[in-house]
Amino acid sequence: MENQTLKDYVLKNRSYRRFHQDVEIDRDTLLELIDMARNTPSAANNQPIRYKIVNDQDNCGKLFPYIGWAGYLKDWPGPEEGERPSAYIIMASSLDANATIDEGIAGQTILLGAVEKGFGGCFLGNIRKDMIAKVIDLPENMKVDYVIALGKPKETVVLEDMKDNDVRYYRDENRVHHVPKRTLEQVLL
Amino acid sequence: MENQTLKDYVLKNRSYRRFHQDVEIDRDTLLELIDMARNTPSAANNQPIRYKIVNDQDNCGKLFPYIGWAGYLKDWPGPEEGERPSAYIIMASSLDANATIDEGIAGQTILLGAVEKGFGGCFLGNIRKDMIAKVIDLPENMKVDYVIALGKPKETVVLEDMKDNDVRYYRDENRVHHVPKRTLEQVLL
Repeated sequence: MENQTLKDYVLKNRSYRRFHQDVEIDRDTLLELIDMARNTPSAANNQPIRYKIVNDQDNCGKLFPYIGWAGYLKDWPGPEEGERPSAYIIMASSLDANATIDEGIAGQTILLGAVEKGFGGCFLGNIRKDMIAKVIDLPENMKVDYVIALGKPKETVVLEDMKDNDVRYYRDENRVHHVPKRTLEQVLL
Repeated sequence: MENQTLKDYVLKNRSYRRFHQDVEIDRDTLLELIDMARNTPSAANNQPIRYKIVNDQDNCGKLFPYIGWAGYLKDWPGPEEGERPSAYIIMASSLDANATIDEGIAGQTILLGAVEKGFGGCFLGNIRKDMIAKVIDLPENMKVDYVIALGKPKETVVLEDMKDNDVRYYRDENRVHHVPKRTLEQVLL
């Protein structure tokens, strides 16, 4: 993080959906991200999240059909072969746990860590949890909650001030991905 | 963040519950934290979180009774006068919104940012949301979700490997706060 602030990381940490699929992320790198995530705050310190690493082409391919990529890009079914994530970290928890706040905390930490290591990702909740559980052979007393897709980003994502209260991101003719954000004034009470 | 890694920040970002209450946090600093938070990923980019800054002694004092501090420290009602937070950031959302995953993402970003600025905080969910809404005069179509307490930390918090699956943090005779964390092996599937 030399000569960079946390804000630099936060701004670089966009939701990337196209990657250089041939750039692999090794298991040790992914373990470092999870090792950070396990040391984040946890509600009542329960630490309900369990993590599954998927970073081989075969299993990444098996997960891919069960992930919804970009709800507002109606004509885009997700990244084509060659631009897909090279790794996933899947967050799961016990059937009786509500781990959502922990998963936000841990997921953002993983994504910021990925940025630090020259990667990027996308936090995905629109997923076929039942099918993903089968792919990763999840124990029956657990459920899949979120998937973090990771890779070497291949797209440009720009932030812009929101207009007309329209939250929908969009892609321009140069395939640049635009994300409208509420201004500081708009989020303050 | 010179010569520091994200991991350094993550490890420094403990849940602090005792502060140098006389060290104030000015509004511009808190605005910088919220400005980072508003640029984090948001589910469907809906950006449901609204933020309320409280950093004056009077209002901090009014909020204090409505915050549950440390569930596992049965004999400790929370920080005494002089060791209380000097600021709070309250996260709220519309009554019909479920902003939890966003709040985890944003809250962790705020806490890491606080660490960068030499402060620290505690992410609090065991709170009297109804009463806090009154203190901050929240619009009726909104609800309080979480409170982040902030200040200059006055306590030492240490992490240790969890034993016997016991997640309860505890304080030793020197008032050092110990937090058991599951090992990396224990959180991997």
